Amino acid sequence: MPTIGKRTAQRLALYLVKASQDEVAALVDAIVKMKQSVRFCSECGALTEQEVCSICTDPRRDHSVICVVEEPGNVMRIESTGEYRGLYHVLHGRLSPLDGIGPEDLALDRLKKRIKDLGITEVIIATNPNVEGEATSNYIAQTLKPLGVKITGIATGVPIGSDLDLADEITLARAIKGRGEIK
Amino acid sequence: MPTIGKRTAQRLALYLVKASQDEVAALVDAIVKMKQSVRFCSECGALTEQEVCSICTDPRRDHSVICVVEEPGNVMRIESTGEYRGLYHVLHGRLSPLDGIGPEDLALDRLKKRIKDLGITEVIIATNPNVEGEATSNYIAQTLKPLGVKITGIATGVPIGSDLDLADEITLARAIKGRGEIK
Repeated sequence: MPTIGKRTAQRLALYLVKASQDEVAALVDAIVKMKQSVRFCSECGALTEQEVCSICTDPRRDHSVICVVEEPGNVMRIESTGEYRGLYHVLHGRLSPLDGIGPEDLALDRLKKRIKDLGITEVIIATNPNVEGEATSNYIAQTLKPLGVKITGIATGVPIGSDLDLADEITLARAIKGRGEIK
Repeated sequence: MPTIGKRTAQRLALYLVKASQDEVAALVDAIVKMKQSVRFCSECGALTEQEVCSICTDPRRDHSVICVVEEPGNVMRIESTGEYRGLYHVLHGRLSPLDGIGPEDLALDRLKKRIKDLGITEVIIATNPNVEGEATSNYIAQTLKPLGVKITGIATGVPIGSDLDLADEITLARAIKGRGEIK
């Protein structure tokens, strides 16, 4: 399991051995219930306990913008910023030739259908800014271009609160290249 | 001294105690020579062994763009990216009210004079993307605005090679806000 190494696993196991029968039963129950109730939204692919998630059904959100992310966790991360008020589309993966994940595995037909059905005007591609994420971003941009929708990508650059000296060279080069006018 | 804590200091001291007389003399000599020969460029304020640094005197560089940084080390950092071919201006500081560093300490008159004398068309402000750096950036932008020169800032956003889940919320919010069109 992610973030749980040998030492942490051992610590957790010993904790459970010491815990009361009730506590262990409650944990098992919670895991089973979670697994039964949480599913992927049939619209966007994010996590939900309903058929369609609360973001897709929220009339106060902007239904003309869609943000494409790799995993359901990314939706929660972007939601926590409070900066974005549109819809999402979760790919549940990224192009990864080494792992045998090709374009056909990304199920872009469903994304294309949503863009047409919802009358989307802007697609924000928010895949991870690494090699596989950027390849995925490029592929999606090329695929969606014929639809005539505006396609944007989240900004890459030096993180806020950081220091130029801490930024790696590629990030710094991109930050200089992607500089914006200060009004 | 920066990055040298108690343990490192002890390790270095013990190394020097064990080192030969010649080695220690060579180190002392190198430090003295460095201190005598390295100075700040009278034009841009970067480190140099001449009166004017090799960047300011290089005719192959773009003498119409100037990049404003806080410290000489930032010049080396940006040079290492190979992305930038213009000139620099080192502030040797940043606005820091808590440390008593105000606008008058940034010596912007010299920057203004250089912009006029060199016929600069773009000023790239590359102060650190933290509170003090951004305050400094805003102040410089306001100060230079009357000169009618184009003022840009380096891009802030998610670092390259990183993961959305690793970005802090403020950076991610900025990355969404600062998104750019994919052509």
